[in-house]
Amino acid sequence: MRIIGIDCGSERTGFGVIDSDGSMHQFVRAGVVRTRCADPLARRLHEIAAELRKTLAALSPDVVAVEEVFHAVNAKSALKLAHVRGIALLLAAEAGLPVSEYSALEVKMSVVGYGRAEKHQVQTMVRSLLRLQDGIESYDASDALAVAICHATRAHYRLAAGLK
Amino acid sequence: MRIIGIDCGSERTGFGVIDSDGSMHQFVRAGVVRTRCADPLARRLHEIAAELRKTLAALSPDVVAVEEVFHAVNAKSALKLAHVRGIALLLAAEAGLPVSEYSALEVKMSVVGYGRAEKHQVQTMVRSLLRLQDGIESYDASDALAVAICHATRAHYRLAAGLK
Repeated sequence: MRIIGIDCGSERTGFGVIDSDGSMHQFVRAGVVRTRCADPLARRLHEIAAELRKTLAALSPDVVAVEEVFHAVNAKSALKLAHVRGIALLLAAEAGLPVSEYSALEVKMSVVGYGRAEKHQVQTMVRSLLRLQDGIESYDASDALAVAICHATRAHYRLAAGLK
Repeated sequence: MRIIGIDCGSERTGFGVIDSDGSMHQFVRAGVVRTRCADPLARRLHEIAAELRKTLAALSPDVVAVEEVFHAVNAKSALKLAHVRGIALLLAAEAGLPVSEYSALEVKMSVVGYGRAEKHQVQTMVRSLLRLQDGIESYDASDALAVAICHATRAHYRLAAGLK
């Protein structure tokens, strides 16, 4: 199963693609789409959509995994993030791909085993689980890979437990 | 100038198209894209995008006018609305159209002359300003027409005042 995890953000949107049989994960590609803060949001969404579309077309994942959007913390950033998340969900639907959503807590629990893990801890575990020699470009990319790993593990569990 | 106003919502997204020279407005078309609450958000966004794309292609507006997203009130609905708004902004950018954003207060002030006007008052004024004999399908459509009228008036004022 090929999974793309997308970590939505209006300034930086990370993506991470892995192949997984549920227990062994293989790194395929990861990257970050960066947009200029000074540009209008519509243009930035357009750039993010163009890059993600290219990635989906080039790597043909079977499923898209994204984080649930949190309501609290910073309402203004959450709203901007939701615009980008709308784009990610739209592209998944346009490509006919199922979408799985996980809370930040689930992702951290799944990858680090600790729900309040810091970004650098997530990145360290992602590198280890994917047996990467090199570093990962940014936290946006490692967070995206973490969502993909979380989905791989959960999907494997659901299959093993005979759940849908 | 042909303007499309879009009133974003995850259950019902209204759109309203007018031709305007800034003082006289001519109704072109209005409608509502309805989606099923029970469906996954990705599918609903896909349906909304498909309908809006068709409308943009068929009616070739010069500009897209949308309401700014409000932060407070109901955080959960605001977040869902922001997903849809992301789609509207993306489609505008994909079509190469400029986007103008107005607060709910500006729209109501512009159309009704009263910032706390109710939806039925907005609808009544929209019908009157557009000299419509028939009723308007829903508040979503009249709200969308109101955003378009607000933009027409503001753009006319900026032109008359020698502003950009």
